Amino acid sequence: MDRPLVIGVMGGGNVDPATMENAYELGRLVAGQDWCLLNGGRDSGVMEASAKGACENGGMTIGILPDDTSQAASPYIRIPICTGMGMARNCINVLSSDVVVACPGGAGTLSEIALALKAGKPVITMGFKLNELPGIGSGTSEIFYAGTPQEVIKTIKKIVQKGNK
Amino acid sequence: MDRPLVIGVMGGGNVDPATMENAYELGRLVAGQDWCLLNGGRDSGVMEASAKGACENGGMTIGILPDDTSQAASPYIRIPICTGMGMARNCINVLSSDVVVACPGGAGTLSEIALALKAGKPVITMGFKLNELPGIGSGTSEIFYAGTPQEVIKTIKKIVQKGNK
Amino acid sequence: MDRPLVIGVMGGGNVDPATMENAYELGRLVAGQDWCLLNGGRDSGVMEASAKGACENGGMTIGILPDDTSQAASPYIRIPICTGMGMARNCINVLSSDVVVACPGGAGTLSEIALALKAGKPVITMGFKLNELPGIGSGTSEIFYAGTPQEVIKTIKKIVQKGNK
Amino acid sequence: MDRPLVIGVMGGGNVDPATMENAYELGRLVAGQDWCLLNGGRDSGVMEASAKGACENGGMTIGILPDDTSQAASPYIRIPICTGMGMARNCINVLSSDVVVACPGGAGTLSEIALALKAGKPVITMGFKLNELPGIGSGTSEIFYAGTPQEVIKTIKKIVQKGNK
Repeated sequence: MDRPLVIGVMGGGNVDPATMENAYELGRLVAGQDWCLLNGGRDSGVMEASAKGACENGGMTIGILPDDTSQAASPYIRIPICTGMGMARNCINVLSSDVVVACPGGAGTLSEIALALKAGKPVITMGFKLNELPGIGSGTSEIFYAGTPQEVIKTIKKIVQKGNK
Repeated sequence: MDRPLVIGVMGGGNVDPATMENAYELGRLVAGQDWCLLNGGRDSGVMEASAKGACENGGMTIGILPDDTSQAASPYIRIPICTGMGMARNCINVLSSDVVVACPGGAGTLSEIALALKAGKPVITMGFKLNELPGIGSGTSEIFYAGTPQEVIKTIKKIVQKGNK
Repeated sequence: MDRPLVIGVMGGGNVDPATMENAYELGRLVAGQDWCLLNGGRDSGVMEASAKGACENGGMTIGILPDDTSQAASPYIRIPICTGMGMARNCINVLSSDVVVACPGGAGTLSEIALALKAGKPVITMGFKLNELPGIGSGTSEIFYAGTPQEVIKTIKKIVQKGNK
Repeated sequence: MDRPLVIGVMGGGNVDPATMENAYELGRLVAGQDWCLLNGGRDSGVMEASAKGACENGGMTIGILPDDTSQAASPYIRIPICTGMGMARNCINVLSSDVVVACPGGAGTLSEIALALKAGKPVITMGFKLNELPGIGSGTSEIFYAGTPQEVIKTIKKIVQKGNK
């Protein structure tokens, strides 16, 4: 079977309206490529917006929940994966994604960027740049910057063509 | 969004031909109901057979892998979830399933039955009965027995109607 | 460094007085051997009793908690390990133990027996026998039966001498 | 029981000699306070050096291993906790520590800093400063800076006195 590319979209649970719009648009574009959108699954912030964008445009959405039930899942998540593992689910988020896109967020998002680098996954930051992080450069993966959702899609295509998937 | 029912199919990685046939048929029937099939994701035994049955009949298949990559995933798994957590992924298998179907297997399958009971998930054993297990009766969930894949489907429908989902 | 043997003691959170007494006595005897007692860490049932028996007799006690804080830890646990992973911590219980002793319990205890067998750890059931479990015999480890805490200690010594540690 | 303070010491597996010396000295000082040292348990870098410093000076050392056996544990770890969960064990590292001390490292160390902030744990960076990290300031915990192992100990005492434990 030809599997769809899985795009992990990470970001804060409480973010500004522009970030919400970008996350929605990113979800919409991911669905348009017939890629699968994967995120933390909750009904807030970047998780909700990106799932909504994908779901309303016919895309598959997977949510890796920290909870042991799907009660707090976004209604736009088609398949909730209930880990019951709290923030340890952040590891599953990045390991299950072919490419990790980081939207603005807090410490949880930072942990996912760091775990993705540790795991050798390509990371794209959308709308913000990371400078002088400890560990950057020492990993096996790269950090890419994209200003817009459209640029994220282009960057993903470049990464996949280079065989980084 | 109306989510599909998620049916977790557990069972051994090395089983007899009759069990493989039953697992394939169960996957086929699950797909026919437009339910999602979830299992441990590997390319052997009940995992492979049930995913094949669902996938070849147009169903969605999710595999919760113990590994940190999808290299050992069954080709019939559409979305591999890479946990990198070894047998701790058995917990995710049961927490993410609305109903857990246990096919014949070994200690791993037994752990999934026990974890499902602990989590209060309905369990259906297909083709074998469990007697006098410690813990049975003390949990909040029930164990159902089904002799055939067709009976499993009927039993799932009864469980869901009773609101156990 | 010569590490102490780690004895995992599993069992129900709500058990009869005789089981509590046996768990206390087992903890006491484990401490007397200068072994480390490891359990699920909570302040109830076999966890509380076995930790109390070890702690009050100068032994080291490690509790692998399902919680992300130590608030529900038994006061007799010297080092609480906070996993925040719910029942996935049952896997850590068995992987971190050289020998797993199962006292009477429910589905959680059964899951630990099954996970221990899956992981190839020697299992001793104290005061109850397991018959006709699926999977038993198919694993790489053995199940031993001991009627009393004293017999558990003797059985552990035999297992260690045979090099099963 | 009066539990010892648990000090989590994080840092790279491959670091420069000065960092190794500081990690050893930090372990020695932690042991001198009768605190418990907890780290990632492996036999390299900051893990090995800090465990050695604590162990050779009579301290208790706990190692939370990514592996399912203790074969790769540092010989200076007295109690290895085998998680079998790969980098998800980083979450357990921080949740089980009263204070997290970060030595220089790479992406893994950065993930532990971020997870600690997410979990509201006080973090002390030893010998390096973190600037302009996304998420800092938005969490409930604080980042402290210490130039030397001696300053780390002083900072821990201040944190504990303020009731941040």
